[in-house]
Amino acid sequence: MLVGSVEAGGTKFVCAIGDEDYRVKDSTKFPTTTPEETLDKVVKYFEKFNIDALSIASFGPLEIKKNSPKYGYITNTPKPHWSDTDFVGYIQRKLKIPIFWTTDVNGSAYGEYVMSTLTNEKINSLVYYTIGTGVGGGAIINGEFVGSAGHPEMGHVLLKRHPDDLDFEGICPFHKDCLEGLVSGPTFEARLHKNGKDVSLDDPVWDIMAYYIAQAAMQVSLILRPDKIVFGGGVANKSLLRKVRLELKTMINDYLPLPKLENYITLPAIKNNGSATLGNFALAVKLLRA
Amino acid sequence: MLVGSVEAGGTKFVCAIGDEDYRVKDSTKFPTTTPEETLDKVVKYFEKFNIDALSIASFGPLEIKKNSPKYGYITNTPKPHWSDTDFVGYIQRKLKIPIFWTTDVNGSAYGEYVMSTLTNEKINSLVYYTIGTGVGGGAIINGEFVGSAGHPEMGHVLLKRHPDDLDFEGICPFHKDCLEGLVSGPTFEARLHKNGKDVSLDDPVWDIMAYYIAQAAMQVSLILRPDKIVFGGGVANKSLLRKVRLELKTMINDYLPLPKLENYITLPAIKNNGSATLGNFALAVKLLRA
Repeated sequence: MLVGSVEAGGTKFVCAIGDEDYRVKDSTKFPTTTPEETLDKVVKYFEKFNIDALSIASFGPLEIKKNSPKYGYITNTPKPHWSDTDFVGYIQRKLKIPIFWTTDVNGSAYGEYVMSTLTNEKINSLVYYTIGTGVGGGAIINGEFVGSAGHPEMGHVLLKRHPDDLDFEGICPFHKDCLEGLVSGPTFEARLHKNGKDVSLDDPVWDIMAYYIAQAAMQVSLILRPDKIVFGGGVANKSLLRKVRLELKTMINDYLPLPKLENYITLPAIKNNGSATLGNFALAVKLLRA
Repeated sequence: MLVGSVEAGGTKFVCAIGDEDYRVKDSTKFPTTTPEETLDKVVKYFEKFNIDALSIASFGPLEIKKNSPKYGYITNTPKPHWSDTDFVGYIQRKLKIPIFWTTDVNGSAYGEYVMSTLTNEKINSLVYYTIGTGVGGGAIINGEFVGSAGHPEMGHVLLKRHPDDLDFEGICPFHKDCLEGLVSGPTFEARLHKNGKDVSLDDPVWDIMAYYIAQAAMQVSLILRPDKIVFGGGVANKSLLRKVRLELKTMINDYLPLPKLENYITLPAIKNNGSATLGNFALAVKLLRA
């Protein structure tokens, strides 16, 4: 059995071929340009292999309701050219195989969930946040994605402001100081006028970031009671997550029994940004076995 | 078929007998005193009827994990005498029937969910908040309760503070200015030195309340994408929910497609605080049919 993975990001696409044990047999990446050009590259890549099913984890927002006439579309994205793109329909007409369709963060969440079960962690639920150019989250409970009227948009929750950050307006075009507006990668530029990779790990801005990210972890802990929360994306790092654990411990104030925080708040177990690819392989295999 | 419902609150217990169509055949209520006295009254009440199953929706926190040796217990509650009470074990030893066990808000959520399906609303998921002496929430997705490592504790999320409310410290003993600490019934006493029922509906405090409650609705909308959010409890009222809808619309700023707000943010469809009783009847019937 061969399955395909498309991780469709706003900047680049990563396509890969895997087997039923989720091993990568081949992969490629290319920049995200227009839908026509980019989706044509996707089709041409997979035509070289005889895959049985494909899973697509895409930047959004997406229509994921099966009974919608727009199922399989990228809907009203701010990304130029991509609004109202029939992603799944286009690929399916060309490749004529079963396709699973979900968000990029759901794909990563599923990859991390599968990896946890493969390594014998006893978990039934997992939340995955990406903190990068944007902020988003996906959640799985008992193997199923959370989200009934649509997929989650966990990056846009409002938060209690850090006392040393009251003057920063936030950069989300929709909500200003929501989570994304306070901790996404471009906030480094907005707060400190330099790129995030040039910000020293002992800069106090990381305490502010940790305060907000811990609140996101607290919200999702109180609402979903997950077994594990994984933080990926370019902004997440070991030092930041150490601070997030400390902030979360202080904030939650022993109100809930939480798992050991080192196991509860973690970086992705799958290295080199491979979470979504593994997730896609597993989702494509699941689709074939359904 | 006859089933039983226990709605176990911190102030009073409501016990009821229902049939498979969820009609109330009999009911009683009594104050919550010590566990021994109160649970004995529960047993004595149900011994008068020949019920086939019972569902208990209790104040918490509860142990709901089936594989825990403390399953069926009220755990570390601040309520005097009730910590570490083997609620389900005690009742089961006396009545020897199948018992479903969940939180008060989950019971209410289930009642409202069942009522929505009975009235042919097309919903797959629902969140129920109570805003009363405390604040809590329960959630259902596709007929199943949300909460893997434990039940939700949605009342304790942190929030962006209202600009006219920055000096109010909040009254939650664990988190000060979490949702419960900012909008539960006793906050009227703390902010205005009078009882909530004496606060006029045009007092500006309701705008502050609505601002926080709308944030809770926004969080849960972004994280769970439910089809409906119901607000019960003594503080919830029509005028407040009108304000909550307006605040939510402003805050979310068309970022998500939401259902019509009049149908999305509502008071309980079941009148006279009957949501948990109906939910319990349905859960007990479901237990028998499982």
